[in-house]
Amino acid sequence: MVLNPTELITSDKNTTVKLVKALLAQARQRKKHGQTVIEGVHLIDAALRSDYPFAQILLSESARSHPEVQQVLTRLPTYTPILILSNSLYESIRSLGTGIDIMAIINVPTPNLSMIDEDCLILNDVQDSGNVGTLLRTAAAVGIRNILCTSATAQAWSPKTLRAGMGAQFALTIYEGLSTQDILDHVKVPLLATSSHTDTIIYDHDLSAPVAWIMGHEGQGVSDDLMQCATPIALPQPNGQESLNVAIAGALCLYETLRQRQYS
Amino acid sequence: MVLNPTELITSDKNTTVKLVKALLAQARQRKKHGQTVIEGVHLIDAALRSDYPFAQILLSESARSHPEVQQVLTRLPTYTPILILSNSLYESIRSLGTGIDIMAIINVPTPNLSMIDEDCLILNDVQDSGNVGTLLRTAAAVGIRNILCTSATAQAWSPKTLRAGMGAQFALTIYEGLSTQDILDHVKVPLLATSSHTDTIIYDHDLSAPVAWIMGHEGQGVSDDLMQCATPIALPQPNGQESLNVAIAGALCLYETLRQRQYS
Repeated sequence: MVLNPTELITSDKNTTVKLVKALLAQARQRKKHGQTVIEGVHLIDAALRSDYPFAQILLSESARSHPEVQQVLTRLPTYTPILILSNSLYESIRSLGTGIDIMAIINVPTPNLSMIDEDCLILNDVQDSGNVGTLLRTAAAVGIRNILCTSATAQAWSPKTLRAGMGAQFALTIYEGLSTQDILDHVKVPLLATSSHTDTIIYDHDLSAPVAWIMGHEGQGVSDDLMQCATPIALPQPNGQESLNVAIAGALCLYETLRQRQYS
Repeated sequence: MVLNPTELITSDKNTTVKLVKALLAQARQRKKHGQTVIEGVHLIDAALRSDYPFAQILLSESARSHPEVQQVLTRLPTYTPILILSNSLYESIRSLGTGIDIMAIINVPTPNLSMIDEDCLILNDVQDSGNVGTLLRTAAAVGIRNILCTSATAQAWSPKTLRAGMGAQFALTIYEGLSTQDILDHVKVPLLATSSHTDTIIYDHDLSAPVAWIMGHEGQGVSDDLMQCATPIALPQPNGQESLNVAIAGALCLYETLRQRQYS
């Protein structure tokens, strides 16, 4: 990628700059445009490693000469559009703190849900972007590919979720905006959900065949219609404390599945 | 507890109100006063269940008649001082959103570190309050009591950490502000730290005797001086992704310890 822009953008009236600001700030705008913004070298590197295309790269003037940015630029497909922003304009739109000033607009993937007959993770109205991102990161770590999100789940591709996921999104196939009926119609492996109202301890449950783990809303848990179709599984809490954080519960379930298959 | 205050506080010049604002906003003020603020019925209930004393209760005028607040008030020791704030004053100082307007000032415990010869969790400069809180919550769930925090770890009793910990703090003994030498001098059980530079998979490592799990800084991991004294243990990541979030890694270690002792 040869960087040879003729223009330095200094005005926040620039159409692309206005779009970036809207995409960073509002879930509604991301939905409307079908796009999101990834910020920082780390996420851009994750996208590049997955050959994920960029709709637009934006740089600050001073980031242009940064070695890590230079390295990113050489890896970009030649047709990638690049905008150079004045440092003050870039600072005024970024949502990250001080760092290497590079961001990209990408199209949010919208895969079509077909039959799922392998391991998957179902996010049933998980509210917090940090929890969703952490769950995606853990799923990617254990090698689970399919993520099914019901419609009230936090956006998997929002800037916050991308940050918490550390770019795991690029290694996953994420189906968003699903109804519980969509899930019941397409998931052909047994549904499992954590519950404190069962004596079936996860360590005693056979997880050798593919399963669909359901993680629910932080306050209300898994919705009744999904819970009715799922096998309840308990994570032991010998000290009788509060239920675990949903990202923790998810990690324990995914890792116990991995352990039973590969390390027992 | 009979609630019979003669006064309604409306001014933000009130000494207690000023103190609460300072304690909610600044780590430095919490350190200086040795106090923190817990907000909401849930945390106050957690403190009450652990017989943790309150230095001061603050209520909004309208929260006073709320059944959950009434219930809390009947459980308070009779000598607990209570202030009633006008609704608008309470709203102006709270750090939570709309909810049941009750908060309390408590003294942060400062236990003396003596020899540790049982399971413990060491937080070695974990930066993020959410991560610290989640780690405390998980430690409490599995029944680990002793938490040792090095000095750059996020405050265990800050309002944010208390929220993420869901009040687990009240079930734990948390030593803060420690040096790595303090830890090496007092922890008499083997130190373990997760690492990707080892072939020792956690599932193959014998965890039947008491251990001290060390969780490190989100970016830099465990400090060299502690790592040198610890056995490195790998959490498998078959998909070769990024290292796991520290709260996730901690939960996997604590739960594998529990599993080996009670479910294998």
